[in-house]
Amino acid sequence: MPEIRRVSTATNPDTGAAGTTAAAAVSSVARPAAPVHARKPEGFSVAGKALPRADSYAKVTGAAIYADDIALPRMLFGKLLRSTQAHARILRVDCSRAQALPGVVAVATGEELPVRYGILPSSPDETVFAIEKVRYVGEPIAAVVADDELTAEEALNLIEVVYEPLPAVMTIDEALRDASPKIHEESRRSDNVHKEVHLEFGDVEAGFAQADAVFEDEFFYEGNTHAAIEQHAVVADCSADGKITIWSSSQTPHYLHRIASAVLQVPASRLRVVAPPIGGGFGGKTEPFPHELAAAHLARKTGRPVKFALTRQEVFYTHRGRHPVKMKIKTGVKRDGSILACRLQTWLDGGAYGSYGVATTYYTGALAPVTYKMGAYAFDGCRVYTNKPPCGPKRGHGTTQPRYALECQLDKIAGALGLDAAAYRKRIAIDPYSETINHLRVTSCGLRECIDEVERRTGYSGRHGALPRGKGIGLAVSAYLCGAGLPIYWNPMPHSGAIVKVDRGGGVTVYCGTSECGQGSEHMLAVVVAETLGVDVMDVRVCAGDTDLTPVDLGSYSSRVTFMAGNAAHEAAESVRLRLAQAAGALLGIAPERCGFAARRVFDVGDPDRAVTFLEAAQAAEARFGTLVGSGSYTPPANLHGDFKGSGVGPSPAYSYTACVAEVGVDLETGEVRVERLTLAHDCGRALNPDIVEGQIEGSAYMGLGEALLEESAFRRDEHKIPNLLDYKTPTILDTPHIDAIIVETDDREGPFGAKEAGEGPLNPVIPAIANAVADAIGVRVYATPILPESVLRALDASPSGRLRLKSAPSPVPV
Amino acid sequence: MPEIRRVSTATNPDTGAAGTTAAAAVSSVARPAAPVHARKPEGFSVAGKALPRADSYAKVTGAAIYADDIALPRMLFGKLLRSTQAHARILRVDCSRAQALPGVVAVATGEELPVRYGILPSSPDETVFAIEKVRYVGEPIAAVVADDELTAEEALNLIEVVYEPLPAVMTIDEALRDASPKIHEESRRSDNVHKEVHLEFGDVEAGFAQADAVFEDEFFYEGNTHAAIEQHAVVADCSADGKITIWSSSQTPHYLHRIASAVLQVPASRLRVVAPPIGGGFGGKTEPFPHELAAAHLARKTGRPVKFALTRQEVFYTHRGRHPVKMKIKTGVKRDGSILACRLQTWLDGGAYGSYGVATTYYTGALAPVTYKMGAYAFDGCRVYTNKPPCGPKRGHGTTQPRYALECQLDKIAGALGLDAAAYRKRIAIDPYSETINHLRVTSCGLRECIDEVERRTGYSGRHGALPRGKGIGLAVSAYLCGAGLPIYWNPMPHSGAIVKVDRGGGVTVYCGTSECGQGSEHMLAVVVAETLGVDVMDVRVCAGDTDLTPVDLGSYSSRVTFMAGNAAHEAAESVRLRLAQAAGALLGIAPERCGFAARRVFDVGDPDRAVTFLEAAQAAEARFGTLVGSGSYTPPANLHGDFKGSGVGPSPAYSYTACVAEVGVDLETGEVRVERLTLAHDCGRALNPDIVEGQIEGSAYMGLGEALLEESAFRRDEHKIPNLLDYKTPTILDTPHIDAIIVETDDREGPFGAKEAGEGPLNPVIPAIANAVADAIGVRVYATPILPESVLRALDASPSGRLRLKSAPSPVPV
Repeated sequence: MPEIRRVSTATNPDTGAAGTTAAAAVSSVARPAAPVHARKPEGFSVAGKALPRADSYAKVTGAAIYADDIALPRMLFGKLLRSTQAHARILRVDCSRAQALPGVVAVATGEELPVRYGILPSSPDETVFAIEKVRYVGEPIAAVVADDELTAEEALNLIEVVYEPLPAVMTIDEALRDASPKIHEESRRSDNVHKEVHLEFGDVEAGFAQADAVFEDEFFYEGNTHAAIEQHAVVADCSADGKITIWSSSQTPHYLHRIASAVLQVPASRLRVVAPPIGGGFGGKTEPFPHELAAAHLARKTGRPVKFALTRQEVFYTHRGRHPVKMKIKTGVKRDGSILACRLQTWLDGGAYGSYGVATTYYTGALAPVTYKMGAYAFDGCRVYTNKPPCGPKRGHGTTQPRYALECQLDKIAGALGLDAAAYRKRIAIDPYSETINHLRVTSCGLRECIDEVERRTGYSGRHGALPRGKGIGLAVSAYLCGAGLPIYWNPMPHSGAIVKVDRGGGVTVYCGTSECGQGSEHMLAVVVAETLGVDVMDVRVCAGDTDLTPVDLGSYSSRVTFMAGNAAHEAAESVRLRLAQAAGALLGIAPERCGFAARRVFDVGDPDRAVTFLEAAQAAEARFGTLVGSGSYTPPANLHGDFKGSGVGPSPAYSYTACVAEVGVDLETGEVRVERLTLAHDCGRALNPDIVEGQIEGSAYMGLGEALLEESAFRRDEHKIPNLLDYKTPTILDTPHIDAIIVETDDREGPFGAKEAGEGPLNPVIPAIANAVADAIGVRVYATPILPESVLRALDASPSGRLRLKSAPSPVPV
Repeated sequence: MPEIRRVSTATNPDTGAAGTTAAAAVSSVARPAAPVHARKPEGFSVAGKALPRADSYAKVTGAAIYADDIALPRMLFGKLLRSTQAHARILRVDCSRAQALPGVVAVATGEELPVRYGILPSSPDETVFAIEKVRYVGEPIAAVVADDELTAEEALNLIEVVYEPLPAVMTIDEALRDASPKIHEESRRSDNVHKEVHLEFGDVEAGFAQADAVFEDEFFYEGNTHAAIEQHAVVADCSADGKITIWSSSQTPHYLHRIASAVLQVPASRLRVVAPPIGGGFGGKTEPFPHELAAAHLARKTGRPVKFALTRQEVFYTHRGRHPVKMKIKTGVKRDGSILACRLQTWLDGGAYGSYGVATTYYTGALAPVTYKMGAYAFDGCRVYTNKPPCGPKRGHGTTQPRYALECQLDKIAGALGLDAAAYRKRIAIDPYSETINHLRVTSCGLRECIDEVERRTGYSGRHGALPRGKGIGLAVSAYLCGAGLPIYWNPMPHSGAIVKVDRGGGVTVYCGTSECGQGSEHMLAVVVAETLGVDVMDVRVCAGDTDLTPVDLGSYSSRVTFMAGNAAHEAAESVRLRLAQAAGALLGIAPERCGFAARRVFDVGDPDRAVTFLEAAQAAEARFGTLVGSGSYTPPANLHGDFKGSGVGPSPAYSYTACVAEVGVDLETGEVRVERLTLAHDCGRALNPDIVEGQIEGSAYMGLGEALLEESAFRRDEHKIPNLLDYKTPTILDTPHIDAIIVETDDREGPFGAKEAGEGPLNPVIPAIANAVADAIGVRVYATPILPESVLRALDASPSGRLRLKSAPSPVPV
């Protein structure tokens, strides 16, 4: 179990325990009213405990049924024909020979599913199969379903596609050119720009003018992909009454439900989407995909169940991963480092379609000021289309790249001004319960405490700049959302709904539309409900990720589940608890408010030995009030960004904070960087289950390491260079250093039992911390990710001290 | 679609439309207050329509998954070793050779599951496997699970059981003897009586003394069984986290859940029971069975899924069917036929265990006065144990047998007094909104109208007694429950709970614990919810029969689902409708009360063209009120039997009424009876779906015909004589006459949209109607069921006119 530091100073000011130390004095900024969820007066019984997850039993024994484990009688296997061209006009698609192959049951092409869709209503630029044009190598053109997978595969070879090749646009710079070949002809622009954002908060130019020093840097963050171990899979079935069911490894079953209804042209009520347990998503399964919609279409067309299971190569084409982003950052500071003005410019390589790209573009600008006070802030974002697999959200969605740029530049500023980079960051850190320069509302904030913790563990301040050449230590911090404050579709609407049912037998069921993608979301909901009702976590059955059975939840992305679905489940459980307290209070002869709930008992908080069992309370309450069902929902407050609408998709009801120290060794001969230790302190609000939070910190650290040093979506001409896990280098256990995960607990006033997020935030500071450590080790800076040995060697070559020259011939680079 | 007669005279007096004809003038008896469910002001849009059932598509295409269709990976097959002795001490059970057979994975015997249970808490006289004693041929002693069914079967032969035989008790008369061998040694009685009931309402002896005529008769109703086409099957699985799931063809998943928790000694929260669609139950699947509990136990013991699928022979041993009942009935009447006093005595042959027998015993006495006014009524009931498969509830549960006796005797009375049997019954018929002599509250009552309808169709009154010899016409009527008024366990408690969820996409889900046993219960819930919310029935998904996912419902028995679960679903839907009306009213600028709901629109009832779509209303309501979930429950009123507790299990919140005319031909040479036509009129309250009501009337008529003429649980010494469907003669299509089903609609003030029951009531009058028709045809009466050719011949031989003598040798009896 990880070490937990409880930050009383960041405690919810609304509930009394005010901060006492000057360092983290509660900000005096006016706090907008927000619903304060009832706290349990008697302390916690299951929240905060490192309990085993109910779903872990099935997972470690291999009993869990993932999408690709589903097999239905008479099931057909589907395969997608994918484009071999990055950019081409489709002159003809002839499936007749494929259709004639024995064992092939049906084929489908673009004209059967002409509805254009996009996960964001503002970017409806996709169809299930390419129509008229293909826009990247790997784009689906047609589908075949057959009695077996090999036959379907064979039939793909019999489909004839006649292309008229067009020039491919493969880089941001090419896409920005006026003369660039148009990827989406319907765009009214002369270039391939998909989305531009220009925001300014305060007078940035005035800030630069007043500054003692102005720093300007350019960084490039390479794209990379999720590399979840489970490849996407879907099974669809159309029942005898015409109702379609889709089981898919989807983080967002309700979005798939909505878009499948539009694309297949069936009422939503005649469509059911179920998300089985997911073997990792990381954002890569958060929007509807052609294979999902094709499966549903072909199940309806054939009257038989249809499975599509993507190969690893297809997963690379499906992508929707991290955008490559070119960034310019200009920061004006006073002599003491205080930021007077900051201008961030980002150019995102979006690939061929919109995906969540509009949101990604906003995100590249939104969260920089959530960690630091700034006098003025301007943001210019620009996303372009290119002829590559579409980019989308990956853990840290859009905030990872600018965080890298910002934290690297801050290290340069600290160095230039002679400041200790840790103390400097603490000094300019945002205050709890304050507002950022871009009008985002901050609630709890344990950022300073996180910095303290990693400093305490690593001795960063004493060691930075003082290690032998080839050894380095780097620090970075970050903040992340607890779900987006604005919904994708209507506004206002609840982002999460939940139902809680208490049975006559003492069992509790919680229904929620989230999907369990390995992060422990179902356990979190069970903890919130069990804590509220005072039962065992194993008494709570979670029914999740099923559009028929669960209320709408936007899905398992954007680090929103614990916070938003947790709040909905909490509200639902509270409404049942109220009735239980009335019934138990009557049995005990005390007021309902005096009822405590723990250990399957309802007791008098003034005299805990006076109690009835939970079962007795449930039966008495059911007799009195009828079936014990409560519902709850969570809608973020409306004023998360003050009066300033232009804050776009940035607002979140709360933000997590992380600090990371990386310790590295750089082989000055080969340029290889080895991370020796990663120390992360993460403010997740209340840690509802410290083991799960620790797991999320470790997983984020591991993934960040891969992005910093190894992973890249590399293209050779117009084709993905390494669409396989042999060549796409995610870290192995041998690459993974010791990770120290420290939990800094704040008590967020709006999170369920004070909880915030832990699933994404810890990733962001890892990359700049490693970059800063490498700079510390070699004395020069690499301005792009991943920091490959050749980049290190190039940087060393350009530096005054240069690389360590070999006496003999160089040995092969061991990466 | 059947003919529907709307009985405005029986309309709910609380809602205004008072009766106008003298014949059915609304009774002036004080009516206890009862919740009046809101009526839709704008009329019905889906209720009352003969819409296709959503589940019918899967059933007619063979896609429905019944319990025996379930196959899980690594599933074991189980078999039960059943007693070959009717009554014996078990000296030894040795499973060692069975356990050693390759392929056998586990065995289980009685000592592993020693908890005694019974569906009624008052009769906990069973264990999963016989311990110490066996009490009927076919009683389970041990179980084997193996990799395949044949191996399990083979292993049964290797189990050695050493019995010490005891004398078997096979008849009611034997069981009542003081010297009778004790079947249940723990009983404190010297005989084998299980339950005795003695009730008297008014002064019966005084009534007899004042009577102009007193009639005394003795009848015997033979036992018979359900003969559902689906044989019982169960699959159980114990997941990696120790949670047990049982999929079983159970009409009462929540009872199985409760008893499995007790027998397996696991918390109810760690146990889930799911009822897949059931291929017919008729009461035969309404209590936990050894194969279900053994499956769960052995799944837990082996860590592998376990299936038990009973053979047809085992279904006959499992039984819980119709009790054989000996009945004496003594009725004192005035010259005009008015009943001054009636004493009914019943002796029930219960078989070896209690089952629902206590309730059955009460039921044999409870419902006779629900059709007729009586001056005084006494009831003596006595159920005995015998060494036969246990009897339990079958369609008409306990009321079928005495109804046969009562209606036969009434025909005799009418004949003796020279009264027209139809007019006579109408004259003494109970009034709507009145109270019976045994203090049962009657609400709507279309009994007189039912008699009118069958008379109108058949010309009964003119033809009865006037047909040629060998042709007969008979009339009978009956009443039946809409669910039992008292719960089996705690009191008070809701008998049904429901949740209704409305999605952002316009879909509606209703969760209810009933199981669909072919009767259309899921459709009924969908109709109630669709009607309330103004959506299409196909927009409503029904999640039923799952203890994890649905609120408690007592189950699909006792004709309770449409009424009780329907009321719960209605209440749940109303609570959502209220929020929808507020939101839609705001959009339309009208008061919520002015909102009508139909055809997926919410409209101004004053100006139906002003409307929003249901989808718009749902989205507006969700934005305003949060996730749209409502719950409802139904608890019968407490005072259904006035102040008289001794009315026992009789009380129901409402009663259905049926009249039946049977037309028969009797072969005077062979004694064979052929039913030529059955005409039934059934008061089901509001017919929510006339096609389904008609189906229930037809099915009841068919089943009644079988009981009247063909079916019997016959024993040769101590063994079931005909435990197979070849010899157990249910009617074939060739035996089934034309059935006229007439729906008489009343509008019950307490049923959902006025509905009552249709699933059981129509069976009861069929048997006495046929018996009365036979008596009409041959001039003498047969006093026992089934009316076999030999019984007819015996009766003819004993009559003055005798049988038709053959000139030549008799031809073989064609039955």
